[in-house]
Amino acid sequence: MNPERPVTISLIQTHCTSDIEDNLSRTEQFIRQAAENGAQIILLQELFAWPYFCQEVHERFFDWAEPVPGPIIHRFESLARELEVVIVLPLFEKRTDGLYHNTAAVIDADGKYLGKYRKMHIPEDPGFHEKFYFTPGDLGYSVFKTRYATLGVLICWDQWYPEAARLTAMAGADLLIYPTAIASLPQEEGSVATSYIDAWQTIQRSHAIANGCFVASINRTGQENNLSFWGRSFVCNPMGTILAEASGDDEVLTTQIHRSEISTTRNSWPFFRDRRIDSYNAIVSRWIDDGE
Amino acid sequence: MNPERPVTISLIQTHCTSDIEDNLSRTEQFIRQAAENGAQIILLQELFAWPYFCQEVHERFFDWAEPVPGPIIHRFESLARELEVVIVLPLFEKRTDGLYHNTAAVIDADGKYLGKYRKMHIPEDPGFHEKFYFTPGDLGYSVFKTRYATLGVLICWDQWYPEAARLTAMAGADLLIYPTAIASLPQEEGSVATSYIDAWQTIQRSHAIANGCFVASINRTGQENNLSFWGRSFVCNPMGTILAEASGDDEVLTTQIHRSEISTTRNSWPFFRDRRIDSYNAIVSRWIDDGE
Repeated sequence: MNPERPVTISLIQTHCTSDIEDNLSRTEQFIRQAAENGAQIILLQELFAWPYFCQEVHERFFDWAEPVPGPIIHRFESLARELEVVIVLPLFEKRTDGLYHNTAAVIDADGKYLGKYRKMHIPEDPGFHEKFYFTPGDLGYSVFKTRYATLGVLICWDQWYPEAARLTAMAGADLLIYPTAIASLPQEEGSVATSYIDAWQTIQRSHAIANGCFVASINRTGQENNLSFWGRSFVCNPMGTILAEASGDDEVLTTQIHRSEISTTRNSWPFFRDRRIDSYNAIVSRWIDDGE
Repeated sequence: MNPERPVTISLIQTHCTSDIEDNLSRTEQFIRQAAENGAQIILLQELFAWPYFCQEVHERFFDWAEPVPGPIIHRFESLARELEVVIVLPLFEKRTDGLYHNTAAVIDADGKYLGKYRKMHIPEDPGFHEKFYFTPGDLGYSVFKTRYATLGVLICWDQWYPEAARLTAMAGADLLIYPTAIASLPQEEGSVATSYIDAWQTIQRSHAIANGCFVASINRTGQENNLSFWGRSFVCNPMGTILAEASGDDEVLTTQIHRSEISTTRNSWPFFRDRRIDSYNAIVSRWIDDGE
């Protein structure tokens, strides 16, 4: 992992259907296309093999979950080995009956399964009933040392929490990765939808800036019932500058990252030098109530 | 403090000279102008009464410091009482010989001194030798309940630390305030300067988004030796949308904030509901080293 050598990453954003095999095979085709264009690290969107079933609340969807590692991982291990690419796969994990997680697994460029991250922050909002499906993660924050870079994996709702980004960056991530399924509802048209997209991009760019590392966010596309997934996957550098940004349609977004920028940015703006770690204890409070 | 009633705030950004009385009287004129235009809360820039002496390292500048509260506070207490405005005054605080702070004081609209915040994160970079002058703050993070809103005061370099914003917001701030002295160096022209300004604005907007509160940032203007202070003071709402933004010149930037947006934004995107406070303990680590 010579930091002077650029790394090519591809973000695959696609619509999904209720035909899981269709989603899997389309994603495989995109992965082959990305690898042909030089991708070394390939990032998939949240729950990439399924429609975003969480807009409904129904136990039949639990049948879609599988162990991690499990059949989907094994299928993509072969592909990673063949193409010599790192793949980050967000999955619907079955841990046991009645216990499921929103999870992302990392496969190294030799096809080896490196481990998984379980989404720590679980939303529950109109159209996004994730607390019904997913138990909050219990593996904490960690990084995965792949052949090409050290990856920090977080998932969607985690992106609103600077604490999660900070802890993952402090574990040594070169690149923070946010597989995502974020959409507009029908009543959120025009300037409201635009302000949501802007806020979503801004908070993730801020994690790059605060932590002096790269950020990649991969969001699905397409209309699923009431939800219009807005795509707009992007990569930014440690200054928060956008390096590449996708449209709202299915797309393989490919760009290079130069990990030496982490060092130059952090030495120029040495935020980690000056953290007041003696003063952050109350971060583990729920709220600071009057009189506390 | 009826949250349905809009509050008018003014940010005063100005150049400074080495004539302190000139800086004080110019600021007083701007405060009167702001009050005439309806301002209820008036925010001044970092070290507003002085040139940014920290680009030099010389002990003669310690003669400029004064106790907080002290003569400058008393002068502006009268003005606040007369105009019925809240004023946030960033000062060079002398605590005792050889012990100084970069401090901001809050005066309520009845002229009463409410307290002070001492800058927690102190930079030390080419052109910004603050560690020579200022002992890091020891008062922690807190808020000031003024007649018109609850203010959270932080200062400049603090703006790069999501922890500081989080803790101040959790103490109940409606508005996070960042008096600032940030500038470009001569070698940072063109796209580099632009990317710095963009990163500076982005990280502060992200604090509004992550915490569902308003943010105001007040930066000085003018050329002082090697430093080109870029102004560009701004206010954003809890979605991170810019409500008002100043130019690079001396300016009184006035806008209204509607505090009811804090409630609507936090109920729509309830990030505080889902914080994983069981998982943030390592935030107080300096770094998470391999094998720890």
